[in-house]
Amino acid sequence: MAGTNKTVPSVTGGPVVILVDPQLGENIGMVARAMLNCGLSELRLVRPRDGWPNEAAVAAAAGADLVLDGARLYDTTAAALADLNRVYATTARARDLVKHLVTPRQAAAEIRGALAAGERAGLLFGPERAGLTNDDLSLADTLLAVPLNPAFASLNLAMAVLIVSYEWFQVAGETAREIPPRRRESGGQAPAAKAELMSFFARLEAALDETGFLYPPAKRPGMVRNQRNLFQRLAPTDQDLRTLHGIVSALRGAKRRS
Amino acid sequence: MAGTNKTVPSVTGGPVVILVDPQLGENIGMVARAMLNCGLSELRLVRPRDGWPNEAAVAAAAGADLVLDGARLYDTTAAALADLNRVYATTARARDLVKHLVTPRQAAAEIRGALAAGERAGLLFGPERAGLTNDDLSLADTLLAVPLNPAFASLNLAMAVLIVSYEWFQVAGETAREIPPRRRESGGQAPAAKAELMSFFARLEAALDETGFLYPPAKRPGMVRNQRNLFQRLAPTDQDLRTLHGIVSALRGAKRRS
Repeated sequence: MAGTNKTVPSVTGGPVVILVDPQLGENIGMVARAMLNCGLSELRLVRPRDGWPNEAAVAAAAGADLVLDGARLYDTTAAALADLNRVYATTARARDLVKHLVTPRQAAAEIRGALAAGERAGLLFGPERAGLTNDDLSLADTLLAVPLNPAFASLNLAMAVLIVSYEWFQVAGETAREIPPRRRESGGQAPAAKAELMSFFARLEAALDETGFLYPPAKRPGMVRNQRNLFQRLAPTDQDLRTLHGIVSALRGAKRRS
Repeated sequence: MAGTNKTVPSVTGGPVVILVDPQLGENIGMVARAMLNCGLSELRLVRPRDGWPNEAAVAAAAGADLVLDGARLYDTTAAALADLNRVYATTARARDLVKHLVTPRQAAAEIRGALAAGERAGLLFGPERAGLTNDDLSLADTLLAVPLNPAFASLNLAMAVLIVSYEWFQVAGETAREIPPRRRESGGQAPAAKAELMSFFARLEAALDETGFLYPPAKRPGMVRNQRNLFQRLAPTDQDLRTLHGIVSALRGAKRRS
């Protein structure tokens, strides 16, 4: 279902907003409004429950039609992230994941640097009640948590999008201040597009399935998530992925060349 | 109607939120939720259109009952502000008023200083469509405008309250924002001792020598450096190294377990 709509450039060239399994059309509309309030326009929807287009979304968008009209649909989170170099996944709960965790303000500064370096960035939001699954989180580079009253931290979906988008807009509007791209994580090069990383995952996991490493089946999902989180943290460049592919091939190929 | 309800102290001792002529109960409920998300609890209502208490407000508050239960009613804006030392009036439009104009971030910092000096502060919001009247604005010390996309700046009432409250909470809860930079690379766990990392390198490189990957000899040093830099950048924890050892072992062991 991807790629059927025309591409609408972001008003500020800002990050893409991706909603995974959004339920109420009204919430999608409020998200669109919050995005456009903050100069963002590129919305992606993964399996919207009530179908698309959605009249309730239009009513709630209060005129942010250009965001809804340009929204693109995807069947999987992985497909929705394929062309992005850097992905932030929002989470309300502290998770036992080995991953970089930032506030919206820190994310905004990082994204500004990334975009200045020619990367594409995305903000990933889960469904209204459940939030993102661990599998979806494992596709992101970084976790993003809004600092809120710990005794009452449950934020409406559109409110969460608003806070993150608002912080982006505050940073995007500061033309004077220079925020250098985070170079050290990728040695000066941009992280590879997520599609390349997914392709490495597929290769690695196929090889490990072949050897019986991802066994028994009940443990496989957790092992796969663990590995993916580990390599996501590396934020590999295209060159890094070539190296890693080379290593996997070499280790699988039992033949000695010497 | 003022003063009939019991006083509820603010969770953070923060500013009071005053809604003038709010229309939909649902919006009042969403305001209560946004306030409590950000540690604010003292709500005042001037002439709520649909009366008070309001069932739609309770439903939309999503559990922020303590804010609604403690809300106080007033007949005039002046009465609602009577005990406050410093009042910020939100406005979307640039008005022809000779008044101090600040952003929510600036307001939060100012309010923090005012409260520390023993003052009481309030945030004044107008009705959903019209916003505050000039008469109401004239009761405030300072105008507050949220920096937003000038082409689409109309913010839902609860969204406006959220942004201002959120900025307050960021200033009030400075400790919540502190995320030490070293921790983020390993998600709270310490990177493994370098000896463990070296041991992994030795293992990986021996395996790759065996397969003939690090060949020809003239290129070996550069290839090894490249790989080592890649895994150094990951700053692997002990658990990460166990995972990586497992992967290498599995890829080398050609035997299928299944």
